[in-house]
Amino acid sequence: MKTSLKFAVILSGCGVYDGAEIHEAVMTLYAIQKNGALYQIFAPDVDQYHVINHITGQPTGESRNVLIESARIARGNIQPLSEFDPEEYDVLIFPGGFGVAKNLCSFAFDGANCRVDPEVEQAILEMHKKGKPIGALCISPVLIARIIPGALVTIGQDAETASSIKAMGGRHEKTLHREVTIDSSNRIVTTPCYMLNSSLIDIAEGADKAVKELIKLI
Amino acid sequence: MKTSLKFAVILSGCGVYDGAEIHEAVMTLYAIQKNGALYQIFAPDVDQYHVINHITGQPTGESRNVLIESARIARGNIQPLSEFDPEEYDVLIFPGGFGVAKNLCSFAFDGANCRVDPEVEQAILEMHKKGKPIGALCISPVLIARIIPGALVTIGQDAETASSIKAMGGRHEKTLHREVTIDSSNRIVTTPCYMLNSSLIDIAEGADKAVKELIKLI
Repeated sequence: MKTSLKFAVILSGCGVYDGAEIHEAVMTLYAIQKNGALYQIFAPDVDQYHVINHITGQPTGESRNVLIESARIARGNIQPLSEFDPEEYDVLIFPGGFGVAKNLCSFAFDGANCRVDPEVEQAILEMHKKGKPIGALCISPVLIARIIPGALVTIGQDAETASSIKAMGGRHEKTLHREVTIDSSNRIVTTPCYMLNSSLIDIAEGADKAVKELIKLI
Repeated sequence: MKTSLKFAVILSGCGVYDGAEIHEAVMTLYAIQKNGALYQIFAPDVDQYHVINHITGQPTGESRNVLIESARIARGNIQPLSEFDPEEYDVLIFPGGFGVAKNLCSFAFDGANCRVDPEVEQAILEMHKKGKPIGALCISPVLIARIIPGALVTIGQDAETASSIKAMGGRHEKTLHREVTIDSSNRIVTTPCYMLNSSLIDIAEGADKAVKELIKLI
């Protein structure tokens, strides 16, 4: 009997402005299940950069932990990223949200000069070295461009972010709703999601296409 | 040209143990869009009963606001429940999560003797008086049973909750994954979701069926 494929999903909190984008995260999990695979959710056990009131858009002054807040999306079934073992997983995937650019790396503040959380960097590097596919939604392709030299990715249409991706040594392809960019040689699949003004149907379709292409690359 | 149907979605926070169940909330929004309708999200502007660390299951001692946390799922596009106008909506729907039983009413603590948030009670009563359909997922059928005498609902298989529903004057029907209970005379549609041990595919299917049946009742 064929054992199920296993996806490792890395979250960056819970909420688009300071953590993981919730719709993208849920639709990623849904796409993995619909395509017959299993998932385990991970997040780094670090403080969020800040906490944003999602009505006003302003920082609240509170302090929250990325792993503990990500556990809300995971319904408690989550592991610290320090326990991630690349041997156990077939695919690594990152939903988006500002949490990627604020908590998993410093792209929101430092652009092309961003530093990446060491555990996140290690997870990407180890999967890549083993030739295992990596998926990245929304803004999370900046992580890939920062760590894998020459990776071909998409963040949709945003010229400034595309320019930063090139400054980090990556290559950028413009895409529209529900489209994916496939870098076959590096085994990278990316899709813009809420980097475009999207519906939830767009998000679900984009995540589903990305998961299907990742499975083909295994 | 036919105008789109409009759903009002009431959330109770952001996270299964102290707020709205995130998967159910997102799949409800997705089902509404897939069925060609529009939605507006609401939540009461009140403090959460408590904040639960979703890894340990223990209260953290923090204080959070139901409206502000619900805004994470709504990506900021949310209105206080005090602004809900039943004239403007065709359907009212409640995703589940402990937030329903802790923040929208006191069912988690007081069972059949629970009191319901006055704005939530008013929203249900006004929609019901106008003959407009109301949907309730997971644990939220307890709200319906408390407010609409004799309503027929389902929370799946849990005997204790079913017994409380009867004690409040409601009628209970046992259901399994992806099944819905329809009370045609009261125009109520309910489905168990995570009141059963469910997959995300079950949640998506249950929400989609509930939305389809609600649209038929308009």
